[in-house]
Amino acid sequence: MSTRHVFLDHAATTPLNERVLTAMMPYLSDSFGNPSAIYLSGRTAKTALADARATVAGILGAKPEEIIFTGSGTEANALALFGVLRKHGGALVTATTEHHAILNNARQLEKDGMSVTYVGVDRDGFVKIDELATAITSETTLVSIMYANNETGTIAPMADIARAIKMERERRKQTGETRPIYFHTDACQAAGYLPLNVRELGVDLMTMNGSKIYGPKGIGALYVRKGILLSPLWHGGGQENRLRSGTENVAGVVGFAEALKITQEMRDTEGKRLTVLRDYFISELFNIIPKIVLNGPDPSQGLGERRIPNNVNISILDIEGEAYLLYLDHKGIEASTGSACDSVTLDPSHVILALGRPYEYAHASLRFTLGRHTTKEDIDYVLSVMPGITTTLRKISPISLPTDGTGIASRAAFAGQGMPHWEVKNHKNIKSQDHEITKPRKHENIKS
Amino acid sequence: MSTRHVFLDHAATTPLNERVLTAMMPYLSDSFGNPSAIYLSGRTAKTALADARATVAGILGAKPEEIIFTGSGTEANALALFGVLRKHGGALVTATTEHHAILNNARQLEKDGMSVTYVGVDRDGFVKIDELATAITSETTLVSIMYANNETGTIAPMADIARAIKMERERRKQTGETRPIYFHTDACQAAGYLPLNVRELGVDLMTMNGSKIYGPKGIGALYVRKGILLSPLWHGGGQENRLRSGTENVAGVVGFAEALKITQEMRDTEGKRLTVLRDYFISELFNIIPKIVLNGPDPSQGLGERRIPNNVNISILDIEGEAYLLYLDHKGIEASTGSACDSVTLDPSHVILALGRPYEYAHASLRFTLGRHTTKEDIDYVLSVMPGITTTLRKISPISLPTDGTGIASRAAFAGQGMPHWEVKNHKNIKSQDHEITKPRKHENIKS
Repeated sequence: MSTRHVFLDHAATTPLNERVLTAMMPYLSDSFGNPSAIYLSGRTAKTALADARATVAGILGAKPEEIIFTGSGTEANALALFGVLRKHGGALVTATTEHHAILNNARQLEKDGMSVTYVGVDRDGFVKIDELATAITSETTLVSIMYANNETGTIAPMADIARAIKMERERRKQTGETRPIYFHTDACQAAGYLPLNVRELGVDLMTMNGSKIYGPKGIGALYVRKGILLSPLWHGGGQENRLRSGTENVAGVVGFAEALKITQEMRDTEGKRLTVLRDYFISELFNIIPKIVLNGPDPSQGLGERRIPNNVNISILDIEGEAYLLYLDHKGIEASTGSACDSVTLDPSHVILALGRPYEYAHASLRFTLGRHTTKEDIDYVLSVMPGITTTLRKISPISLPTDGTGIASRAAFAGQGMPHWEVKNHKNIKSQDHEITKPRKHENIKS
Repeated sequence: MSTRHVFLDHAATTPLNERVLTAMMPYLSDSFGNPSAIYLSGRTAKTALADARATVAGILGAKPEEIIFTGSGTEANALALFGVLRKHGGALVTATTEHHAILNNARQLEKDGMSVTYVGVDRDGFVKIDELATAITSETTLVSIMYANNETGTIAPMADIARAIKMERERRKQTGETRPIYFHTDACQAAGYLPLNVRELGVDLMTMNGSKIYGPKGIGALYVRKGILLSPLWHGGGQENRLRSGTENVAGVVGFAEALKITQEMRDTEGKRLTVLRDYFISELFNIIPKIVLNGPDPSQGLGERRIPNNVNISILDIEGEAYLLYLDHKGIEASTGSACDSVTLDPSHVILALGRPYEYAHASLRFTLGRHTTKEDIDYVLSVMPGITTTLRKISPISLPTDGTGIASRAAFAGQGMPHWEVKNHKNIKSQDHEITKPRKHENIKS
């Protein structure tokens, strides 16, 4: 094993920031009161909760009572989906590239008899706005689209989504329809790098969690715009505005708030630093490893700002991602194939498939997500070991994918249409950030 | 304010044990991996989770895969109730003295069209076994009775409840009925003081939480006997045997296991120590304060072993519990009126009412729950200030309850029948621990 340790899976989890731990420590020692108690130590805990809530609300441009703390981002997503749909009925619109914390709850809603529409994405993972606009009907009560994708780093066209929802809301107002329509976004991956002002984003509900922003595990938060009624996932003592009963995780809440505060302080500088590192990493990978494909928006195509600064996702053709990870691990490098949350299933990434990539590409995908401690030296070290691992694994590989798009063995298994037949996506609805896609793109080393 | 601090609300929450914090610290610093990841730091986290699960399972006499970690005891209770009833349908049987984490979810199940029966309790808070036996029908899929009551410390007749359920199970077997029937118990208060072997208890599901056993807040656990199918409260990445999706709170889980381990090590000695202190506290209270009533099983009536060792609950007639708490707080003493979880509502304790006490008695109730750091000196200090507070508050009290059971102003508001008209309960079904109730009992200072 290597003595060097390079952690490049910050989309899965992040180390706890030391300032965050320091902020939590009083609530892991002397200040152990139950916030529901009326005596001094209870009031101390209650004040800590209130301060944390105000901090989070301030960063979001929200009111403190609009912040509901949960036990995880997954739970916050479930509270948003079940909360709206069970309270208001109607239909859900979401996307094919959402996290399983959304998709698997959407499937449950379908089983419960609700209507769910899964909007497709283009080759870069951007939700198709025209498809979304069609999917939104007079029945729709919730549109849930993640802010930044955990696998490809694709940043959703938030303004366009918000506009489509606003248009439907206006239409209903004019026709006197009383059914509400809300915009929920899973911002777990975005929270570290993107603006979080809920008014400017035009979102009604927003999910975040601690473990993705150098905060503690076991804590999440859901922003719920004032006036929106939700069904809680369960009942009890009525904590968190009756939406999340149970004694509050005071240390976790305090840690979450501190983590979000630090994240916001560092956002601009970290975003710029990691963007440079990300683009260096991508371009070097394409210089030294043949037959690889970038998944998600391509910085060399002018899409760098539409990809989250810390995400690199490539398919190294003819290799199997899980095997590659073990070789990397042996060198002290920790990365991922798609979402860590999906690794229990071993299914190929539904996100990579949704981009129109063949199964083989999804199985060959590797995700590197950079973080606060990642240096250029770390990236150079990773770049130094990857050609060797690639050669080793390709030598023992039973497959050698043709990359002209014809003759791939399991054509029938394609989720999309095979690489060269990809539909040329146009983003004509995405006025603010138009871009042209040429093909083949620079970041498709399809010469074998 | 007093410089002295005497915390006597251990049923609401407990300080984090130092050994527990030490066990958690690695997972709040370097060992921050996501247990779903396959690389080294992920495997380290996964091993920590597995070890913690094995520790908890060992204490319960269970298998590791039977332990599901949740975000709180409330959530574990909800998972048990919704989990069984949504999966198997049928009916729920529970008791009137359960925690709101049970009762409010039971009410939701009723709203969802399920049948729920609330079994009554006797004057000491013991579930009426004959009523329970009648409540269990061929429709019943879950019986949920808490192990030890959070307000009165009443320990449920677990063996009798288990026997009633087993009898129904046997009956169904003989008639070929396939509907399952399970026994769930909320053991949050019991976990610190009572045996937890699930086979010996005859329970199928059991709730515990960290914050009641000197562990962290934000972590709970549900024992689910192997083979029992539950509907999860939500879906996602499939963690915790698909029953509780979301990145695991590794530090919390590790802390919970360590806390439970320490609790078990200390159980016998602490139980004996606190029983002596509790009984001293109760008998001194009755020596120095007139017109008070003990709520829950009376040690002076031979019921000491059927009351949890750390619980003292009295009604100080003619005073208002919340006001009393503030006076105690001013003296540095932290106690509670009923459950801290209910203090947001200010409703009088439903538990005290369920014992057959008048509303006025419930409003006058105070709960002191002792803990590991409680000394005789602490109790003597509390005893030294209570007569003064009592006199002060009674001086300004607008009420002076007659204690012969006649003439109490709001007779119609009684939940029960007024003190002297209490039905004489017999525990003929509780073969193992028969006791006689005489009245008035020693611990009813009803001479005004």
